[in-house]
Amino acid sequence: MGLVITVVGLGVIGASLGLALRDSPLVEELIGVDTQDGVGEEAVALGVVHRTEELLAGVRQADVVFLCCPLGSMEEVIRRCAPVLKPGAVVTDVGSVKKVVMEWFDRWLPASVCGIGGHPMAGSEKTGLAGADRYLFENAVYIMVVPPGTPSGVCQVLTDLISHTGAKIIRMDAEEHDRLVATVSHLPHLAAVALVNQAGRRPEALALAGGGFRDTTRVASSNPAMWEDILVFNKEAVLEQVDGLIEQLTRLRVCLVEANRTKLRQELDRARDLRESVPRGSRGVLPSACEVITVVPDRPGVIGHLGTILGEGGINIVDIEILRVREGDGGTIRLGVPSPQDGEQAVRLLRSAGIKAWMR
Amino acid sequence: MGLVITVVGLGVIGASLGLALRDSPLVEELIGVDTQDGVGEEAVALGVVHRTEELLAGVRQADVVFLCCPLGSMEEVIRRCAPVLKPGAVVTDVGSVKKVVMEWFDRWLPASVCGIGGHPMAGSEKTGLAGADRYLFENAVYIMVVPPGTPSGVCQVLTDLISHTGAKIIRMDAEEHDRLVATVSHLPHLAAVALVNQAGRRPEALALAGGGFRDTTRVASSNPAMWEDILVFNKEAVLEQVDGLIEQLTRLRVCLVEANRTKLRQELDRARDLRESVPRGSRGVLPSACEVITVVPDRPGVIGHLGTILGEGGINIVDIEILRVREGDGGTIRLGVPSPQDGEQAVRLLRSAGIKAWMR
Repeated sequence: MGLVITVVGLGVIGASLGLALRDSPLVEELIGVDTQDGVGEEAVALGVVHRTEELLAGVRQADVVFLCCPLGSMEEVIRRCAPVLKPGAVVTDVGSVKKVVMEWFDRWLPASVCGIGGHPMAGSEKTGLAGADRYLFENAVYIMVVPPGTPSGVCQVLTDLISHTGAKIIRMDAEEHDRLVATVSHLPHLAAVALVNQAGRRPEALALAGGGFRDTTRVASSNPAMWEDILVFNKEAVLEQVDGLIEQLTRLRVCLVEANRTKLRQELDRARDLRESVPRGSRGVLPSACEVITVVPDRPGVIGHLGTILGEGGINIVDIEILRVREGDGGTIRLGVPSPQDGEQAVRLLRSAGIKAWMR
Repeated sequence: MGLVITVVGLGVIGASLGLALRDSPLVEELIGVDTQDGVGEEAVALGVVHRTEELLAGVRQADVVFLCCPLGSMEEVIRRCAPVLKPGAVVTDVGSVKKVVMEWFDRWLPASVCGIGGHPMAGSEKTGLAGADRYLFENAVYIMVVPPGTPSGVCQVLTDLISHTGAKIIRMDAEEHDRLVATVSHLPHLAAVALVNQAGRRPEALALAGGGFRDTTRVASSNPAMWEDILVFNKEAVLEQVDGLIEQLTRLRVCLVEANRTKLRQELDRARDLRESVPRGSRGVLPSACEVITVVPDRPGVIGHLGTILGEGGINIVDIEILRVREGDGGTIRLGVPSPQDGEQAVRLLRSAGIKAWMR
């Protein structure tokens, strides 16, 4: 007897989860719930879920409920579902903040139902059903927050399901999760927002913005409604980080005011060393062990040529970035490949094709 | 009668300038100067300059001197050169800060020599002669600071020379330049340094760092010695910006403390709108007018396939980014192409090849 799984909220995460779980041998039936008109039916038509139901009818039959709705509506969804859930059911979520979700589980779920927190660290450029992707979670880190006392069998079921998506599960407690994401995700987001708004006081400067500014502020383009929820629901940990950042900036400020080159240099060196220790090319997913820089001639099709040379050599490109663009298709390109061996072979192959290349 | 050009400092910028100016019809002879043993000779061997000289012998004969040495040694170089320069000669630099350089010109150059500030907004992954690239300046913004009273003929000569490199010249005064780069370059650099050092207080967080953190802090990896100089020499404008950033962060902090969702959302919305107004794919160089997102299957060689399809269709890829990586070569890829027409054609071509693609 397989499991009945209900996915509540058929956005990119929910729909991708549906696609990824559909062919799991553990799953007997996948039910999709979405409050938006017609989305459930479309999800069925696209093969994302087997059938669609209203919220209460959908979760009533479920062995496992994945809450993939926005954080802002999640407590209300939990509150409404709680009375109809089957004894022994598991409820889990995919929100970016965990402490508050665990509190909602505690507050509303009956004792016969297990609430387990989840945070797949994967995202997509697209929104909604159209962004559904069977492979969204492959190699992504998936954080699981298992409350003390959860029966190990229940935990195993959820672990097996999530593993089927290709994600790598890391378990930690909610407070630790929230502090970590505040540090590496929520604070950088706020800093990017502050940088853009600061630059906005001098709009003529934006016209000169180069790669450095673009990189540093990229995340400020993301969905403000989602980030409003994340920041508010992780307020405590985020405030601690904001204060820390202001402290760091003040320390740099003092180095400048005092024209203390030695201290300033120590700060810059420390940041460079730490930054270099972050796995490159990972995007939080797959670390690329090696980088190859190539300078390609200025003509159309050259990226295809490059990719074909490496592809024929059996070398996987796990990251690619055009560092400097000239008119036309080309410039200096950074390639991430899985291992130093791949890097050496890539350089060899590219050079024999007459392309300048070196390992970084 | 062509010009004698002397390039002082044969790093990436100086050597690339040499390569770019070598075939200008305005140039009769290119002389290279570098304090490091053997670099001048190597530059001659690589065809970067015609011949190499010691500093004073090199600049004595020059009609135009390009100072491409680090900011930290530039005043000393100007001071030493000043007494031997030809009347009517032009001295220009390539430093990232302009007010202090203009002051050095004022202080040391004789009245018969013109000092004109320059800042090519181009860089390279590589350092030293090995990074020399004929096309480094193509389409890059090149800021020129022309002091009042500079004869227009002199200014025209320098403009013609620089235009030959393919750069786009923008004239502004030194104070404005320094304020603008403080806003879009020096402040983001300091913010990245502060973010990395803040994350460094919780090293276990760095292991979870994803694309957002990597993007936001990328610039913190750059050369600390160079940045020490830049920040110190642009201290005034940078301090003003640091204070502005702390103000912005404090404003965000207050929104969180007060749990004022409306105000927080306004800040997030404003940042998103401003950020979206920054030309994408430009890296300060070439704007890409259109973006195409494609989802490619999970197998080696697929980037080559993609590039070949577009190349055969005559479509230039001006930017490429792997948004999400799965095992192997593939995932969701963002392509920048020059125009919406190119974008539409790219989507058509990719789709007929069975690849999911859409315009962003």
